[in-house]
Amino acid sequence: MKKRAPHITLFSGGVGGAKLVDGFALLEPRANLTVIANTGDDVEQHGLWVSPDPDIVTYTLAGIVDESKGWGIAGDTFHALEALARLGEDTWMNLGDRDLATHIHRTRRRREGVRPTTIADEIARQLGVTTARILLPTDDFLRTVVETDSGTMPFEEYFLKARCEPEPRDIRYDGADKARAAPEALDALDAADMVVMAPSNPIASIGPILAVPGIREALKRCSAFRVAVSPIVGGRALKGPSDRMMRAKGYSVDPVGVASCYEGLIDALVIDEADRAYAAALEGKGLKTLVTQTVMKNRDDRARLAGEVGRAFLPDLEVGQGTG
Amino acid sequence: MKKRAPHITLFSGGVGGAKLVDGFALLEPRANLTVIANTGDDVEQHGLWVSPDPDIVTYTLAGIVDESKGWGIAGDTFHALEALARLGEDTWMNLGDRDLATHIHRTRRRREGVRPTTIADEIARQLGVTTARILLPTDDFLRTVVETDSGTMPFEEYFLKARCEPEPRDIRYDGADKARAAPEALDALDAADMVVMAPSNPIASIGPILAVPGIREALKRCSAFRVAVSPIVGGRALKGPSDRMMRAKGYSVDPVGVASCYEGLIDALVIDEADRAYAAALEGKGLKTLVTQTVMKNRDDRARLAGEVGRAFLPDLEVGQGTG
Repeated sequence: MKKRAPHITLFSGGVGGAKLVDGFALLEPRANLTVIANTGDDVEQHGLWVSPDPDIVTYTLAGIVDESKGWGIAGDTFHALEALARLGEDTWMNLGDRDLATHIHRTRRRREGVRPTTIADEIARQLGVTTARILLPTDDFLRTVVETDSGTMPFEEYFLKARCEPEPRDIRYDGADKARAAPEALDALDAADMVVMAPSNPIASIGPILAVPGIREALKRCSAFRVAVSPIVGGRALKGPSDRMMRAKGYSVDPVGVASCYEGLIDALVIDEADRAYAAALEGKGLKTLVTQTVMKNRDDRARLAGEVGRAFLPDLEVGQGTG
Repeated sequence: MKKRAPHITLFSGGVGGAKLVDGFALLEPRANLTVIANTGDDVEQHGLWVSPDPDIVTYTLAGIVDESKGWGIAGDTFHALEALARLGEDTWMNLGDRDLATHIHRTRRRREGVRPTTIADEIARQLGVTTARILLPTDDFLRTVVETDSGTMPFEEYFLKARCEPEPRDIRYDGADKARAAPEALDALDAADMVVMAPSNPIASIGPILAVPGIREALKRCSAFRVAVSPIVGGRALKGPSDRMMRAKGYSVDPVGVASCYEGLIDALVIDEADRAYAAALEGKGLKTLVTQTVMKNRDDRARLAGEVGRAFLPDLEVGQGTG
């Protein structure tokens, strides 16, 4: 009997997460993929609703992402942004002309009263994404806020405008307590054979998703095998301020700290060969481990890692090989 | 005693009007110029507030207009528009990337509650306009609507999307009866030595300005010399559907018809040499006339025409020569 394709639901932030999502999307035969993309970084810029993480995932899966940066659209120009600066707008967020179209369209649809989840799904389809469904954790307001010695600021402002320079003291998720989980996101957890926490910032990217009431509970009760891929390699974050944010939240900056971020929510942790020494400690905590090369330098790496994760933890289902 | 610089207030639509405004702006020494630009063509496109005529005047005076088209910004690209089309947006309005920045900025400021008149003035200053103040007739909703056999549509949609193909049956100014004149516009009429109706569409471009309660009365009571430049030359419109719209409103498509559009509101009419034969009829109606070359093919033409109009009707004030 032919094995069936697995339902895999990923929690993802931006650049790092999108790479692993892309890896799963590259597998043949195809898994039934769903991405729940972080909206805690959403920000209003120039009066437009910018949604960085869902866009990065969308552009990556659509094959139009600027691969050299990991975000934005390949070959984009910045003429509108230059003109906005001339008009006195604060242009700290590097929005290209083609990218702006997404924000203009999203803002228009949102003002029409269309659900953000529907808009994200529509944008992905219109840009040609066929390998995964891109969902949001909630249609409601959610904002990751970073408290620093230089003041409190939304994550994107901390990340881009302040260039992560101030030391983070705490991270909170404004609006999370009142946000309602999107039913599609809950359904995608209920239907999943495997849930994957992509190697995104556990505090700033996955944390906001888990902070939406109902998501954590769905993750606890679902029958899926739940695995996280550590974004910490060799004691530091591959990209961004994960390490400093984990430290601010009292976690050790290593695979054990990552496992603690996801305590009670994962069955396994994928760690890099550089961190092989942590495998025993993780297994002592009751977690399965997969030790492999987790740094994704190219699309081959992405598909290889995705395939390894799938085959390691879903042995009874048909998990494809990378096509790269 | 040195003559003082005159206060000149122009009513203007888009391309044709902006050329004469530019002519006055080119005069040295400078007149004290104010433009009241038509907002009846304003349209929401992609959720952004587009204001075609004030923008054309602004871009022209800022020296950044695409001279070959008469509108838009020179050298602009259309990457966002292509991306908007990919997202399913109806992109019948050809908005460039740099131009979009103006609409994004205007929309943001408007949503902040800033007066449209203030926004238009700010944009002009930020883009470097120093030769004139650009005002709006009203901060309130005003929409020029064209009734045709193929349905009723806003002017920009008639002009661009329907390419003026349906025969216009009537033109009305939605919202005009409830619009309040902007105080700056009324002040600019009260302070003027000369009021000039630029060679714009009398029905679709100047008509909406005159339809705002208070503007017509201010024009009647003001002490300025009031002159219109005919947009009809040799029995047809230099550009756009002025001729068909004048016909739809029951006016003859000639200088006498233009004079009728402005009946009781002007002291003089500037007509083209091609229409010299109408001078006697106009003078019989009590109007002064200036017969000259009114077709502005280049900036020299603009400054020459502006200088001629100024010197003909403001002989006691210092009206400059074109610098072109």
